[in-house]
Amino acid sequence: MTRILGIDPGLRFTGWGILESEGNRLRHVADGVISTADIADVPLRLKALDDELARILAVYQPDEAAVEETYVNRNATATLKLGYARGVALLAPARVGIPVFEYGAKTVKLSVVGTGNADKVQVGLMVRRLLPGAVSKRADAADALAVAICHAHRRASQAAWSVPA
Amino acid sequence: MTRILGIDPGLRFTGWGILESEGNRLRHVADGVISTADIADVPLRLKALDDELARILAVYQPDEAAVEETYVNRNATATLKLGYARGVALLAPARVGIPVFEYGAKTVKLSVVGTGNADKVQVGLMVRRLLPGAVSKRADAADALAVAICHAHRRASQAAWSVPA
Repeated sequence: MTRILGIDPGLRFTGWGILESEGNRLRHVADGVISTADIADVPLRLKALDDELARILAVYQPDEAAVEETYVNRNATATLKLGYARGVALLAPARVGIPVFEYGAKTVKLSVVGTGNADKVQVGLMVRRLLPGAVSKRADAADALAVAICHAHRRASQAAWSVPA
Repeated sequence: MTRILGIDPGLRFTGWGILESEGNRLRHVADGVISTADIADVPLRLKALDDELARILAVYQPDEAAVEETYVNRNATATLKLGYARGVALLAPARVGIPVFEYGAKTVKLSVVGTGNADKVQVGLMVRRLLPGAVSKRADAADALAVAICHAHRRASQAAWSVPA
């Protein structure tokens, strides 16, 4: 049994979700959204995000983390700021010594919905079908669970294909 | 007397420098370059950067930090990755509870050299003139000291202009 933390980072809202994966079975553990939108100072906003991710890592003790590589389609300043949040999301699990994996948005959608062009509604529906316990109605939390599901699928297929030496 | 940590962040090389500022006087304390270029895994690279910044903060106990807002002129992926390093550079001082200030490259050059279009050689020369003790020959370390000098100038001029109520 492997416990996976999925993170969908953003400088205002960061989705997170925890699931357990055993073979082909998935079980929902927890999910939520970290909001730092009301903190004007960027360093303090990053500290709030880091504090909350550290708390989640301590409470749920995941074995591995998966972070969504969010789309980059806005201006350079917005992209740089998105990078701050992603940097913190990659750092927090590395600091507690667990491996961190990155998946592009298309890879996540392909893995969860079956098509790389799925929209947010389809992703949310499939996440709730695959993980009936998912609590948050927020798209950010569903996206975080989706990247965790993607990582669980990837692990399971790698295990199935690996041939003992 | 205020001790200032300047940081010029990058995903491969991050310059840092410590100076003391008292009125119009500046004194060099330490500087260097954190290299994470030989670590392939990005989360582990961010952890190495974070560990080293935490060590510098613990050893030199600065009162305030100043981070350079590096130029964004490459492609979106490179900009996003630069954001990771900047995110860690903004987070590390915030985590130990000191205020963090950000300065654009032009503001730093204007403050240190007197023109916003100064090149790296001019910045290095002025940093060594203003801080005779600066040790590192690396441009990244000089740039970090430059942003610390910029912040010291800004503090001094604010203090000079503030009128008691």
